[in-house]
Amino acid sequence: MILLFTDFGLEGPYIGQMKAVLLQQAPGVGLIDLFSDVPPYDAKGAAYLLAAYSHGFPEESVFLCVVDPGVGSARKGVVVRADDRWYVGPDNGLFNVVARRAGTVQWWDIDWCPERLSASFHGRDLFAPVAARLARGEAPPGVLQDPSFRVDREWPDDLAQVVYIDRFGNVMTGIRASVLGPDAMLALNGHCLKRARTFSDVPPGAGFWYENANGLAEIAVNQGRADQCLGAKAGDPVAVLPVAQP
Amino acid sequence: MILLFTDFGLEGPYIGQMKAVLLQQAPGVGLIDLFSDVPPYDAKGAAYLLAAYSHGFPEESVFLCVVDPGVGSARKGVVVRADDRWYVGPDNGLFNVVARRAGTVQWWDIDWCPERLSASFHGRDLFAPVAARLARGEAPPGVLQDPSFRVDREWPDDLAQVVYIDRFGNVMTGIRASVLGPDAMLALNGHCLKRARTFSDVPPGAGFWYENANGLAEIAVNQGRADQCLGAKAGDPVAVLPVAQP
Amino acid sequence: MILLFTDFGLEGPYIGQMKAVLLQQAPGVGLIDLFSDVPPYDAKGAAYLLAAYSHGFPEESVFLCVVDPGVGSARKGVVVRADDRWYVGPDNGLFNVVARRAGTVQWWDIDWCPERLSASFHGRDLFAPVAARLARGEAPPGVLQDPSFRVDREWPDDLAQVVYIDRFGNVMTGIRASVLGPDAMLALNGHCLKRARTFSDVPPGAGFWYENANGLAEIAVNQGRADQCLGAKAGDPVAVLPVAQP
Repeated sequence: MILLFTDFGLEGPYIGQMKAVLLQQAPGVGLIDLFSDVPPYDAKGAAYLLAAYSHGFPEESVFLCVVDPGVGSARKGVVVRADDRWYVGPDNGLFNVVARRAGTVQWWDIDWCPERLSASFHGRDLFAPVAARLARGEAPPGVLQDPSFRVDREWPDDLAQVVYIDRFGNVMTGIRASVLGPDAMLALNGHCLKRARTFSDVPPGAGFWYENANGLAEIAVNQGRADQCLGAKAGDPVAVLPVAQP
Repeated sequence: MILLFTDFGLEGPYIGQMKAVLLQQAPGVGLIDLFSDVPPYDAKGAAYLLAAYSHGFPEESVFLCVVDPGVGSARKGVVVRADDRWYVGPDNGLFNVVARRAGTVQWWDIDWCPERLSASFHGRDLFAPVAARLARGEAPPGVLQDPSFRVDREWPDDLAQVVYIDRFGNVMTGIRASVLGPDAMLALNGHCLKRARTFSDVPPGAGFWYENANGLAEIAVNQGRADQCLGAKAGDPVAVLPVAQP
Repeated sequence: MILLFTDFGLEGPYIGQMKAVLLQQAPGVGLIDLFSDVPPYDAKGAAYLLAAYSHGFPEESVFLCVVDPGVGSARKGVVVRADDRWYVGPDNGLFNVVARRAGTVQWWDIDWCPERLSASFHGRDLFAPVAARLARGEAPPGVLQDPSFRVDREWPDDLAQVVYIDRFGNVMTGIRASVLGPDAMLALNGHCLKRARTFSDVPPGAGFWYENANGLAEIAVNQGRADQCLGAKAGDPVAVLPVAQP
């Protein structure tokens, strides 16, 4: 299974062109659009999203990940193997969080180059062929690196900001709910939000935060749009409020 | 064939996560995004859309349908078999119209629960595995019910409101064109609209209604956006005007 | 492989309904959403996009193309074979540019009609079954025409206007970069833009044009939205500025 994780949007030709490469070079492999609209250019926020949304897939799954503001520059391409799954994409921190949370990590710099490499679409020309190769069971086309040098240790364990807003206006943070207590409150743009189990546990129109289906702390309004009610946008900071101890 | 019918939007990870479950649990079965953006939370409007858009598919097709404002509450999950096709989703009326119009109907309450059931994403955790099971030819995991008790008889045969607005601004109603005469007029937000066969039969800029490709009465403007010209949005009431008899 | 190229949008049921036909009538053939949101109704702009984006696919690929403002009128349906690939869709100029640039061209008028042909959705009822037939290796269901009579010779070789704006606000023109010199400047809405190799070669916020990954001249702003900075929309004229010779 190859899972696409990008900021390309489903609009336009980009996802389709990558899938056409995968279909030709890894025939018979299932292709899934896992996330096509992570906030553009934000590799850091995307790294926390990817760590939350790449859980639970079978061994040998290949994640083809492209959030790549530096395309065309000298940034490298990498292959990461973390807990028996593959990750392919630009070397800009996108795999930092997956790698830090994994039990076992290997890391390769891609040293293969296609015959024709456009300046602006490495997702199609470079990363998709590498993902196809991994899905066919071949070795990564690159040089094994010491992974301990590859992960930016200055990034926090959890990212206290808005990393995604979905179709319903629900506001995902980069904080795992498991690191927050049941009484923890989140603050966003001057609004304080208590924890609830899910939408139907609060009145219509009420704001709250809850553990979403992938373990992230997510801010929502029952039958309303949290992004509009709270004026939230991707990148906004979120604060975890201290809770008075009894 | 499994057809996805949801209000999730193609944005975000939701459709992809459901498809990843289906790909693993029903390998080789074709997956179709039939409708991904029905108006959020509106199970009643969606029920009339589903009845129009589930026509004409092969026997044993499985419709995985999630418009589920009550997710996490005590509402049940159901499997419906109507005219040799399967429907899986929440028990909130979404299958009412399909069931009422079908020649043969069976209805099961789902009594299976996955090992891990999130509070907010039963589409992925509960309904997708059940859909995969049906696509593999297995029996519904539930208790057969008397279908006559399951259909809300207070809902009208056709729904005189806007149930969907498409990319072009065309305004779908929940009324089947077949119940309207050739001279019937529709009124929407103070505008009266006559019937035409299709777009090219009226001048550019003119409003009209027509029988769309799935049998619904749809309000349109040739080479224009009916939603903007008429100020229409999902949920707006539509009136069928009496036509003077000769 | 069947590639879908339409102005339907991924929203709504249209793409899904076409794919359901293809899945039934050409089982096992890969389906790719190549372009789903070309500017609505603009067959001329779409023709230049299609010529750029149908490059590089394998022989016998089938492009199912629907940008069809005249659906329901007397316009014909056609099959074009250009450089060993198939194109199916309405006869409104959509295949003009592909045909003119191809080494070998054949052209058929479709004379087949399905049992049930809706007035407004020939993509599903007529063109998808024909595409499936071609993908199965069967002959085009129509009458071979003299292609020299079918291509509008008044259309320019390259189209000096905005033909698409992508998710990032990048502005595609219908001009091939290969016909422009390295010093050529493009003018759009009063702004003059120089050529660069790619985004990372100009400062953040700077506008430029470059050869995009499919060979078109595309106007962009590094880490910004060119459409907003330049007030651009689909259909806007683009001028190629004369460059003073040394």
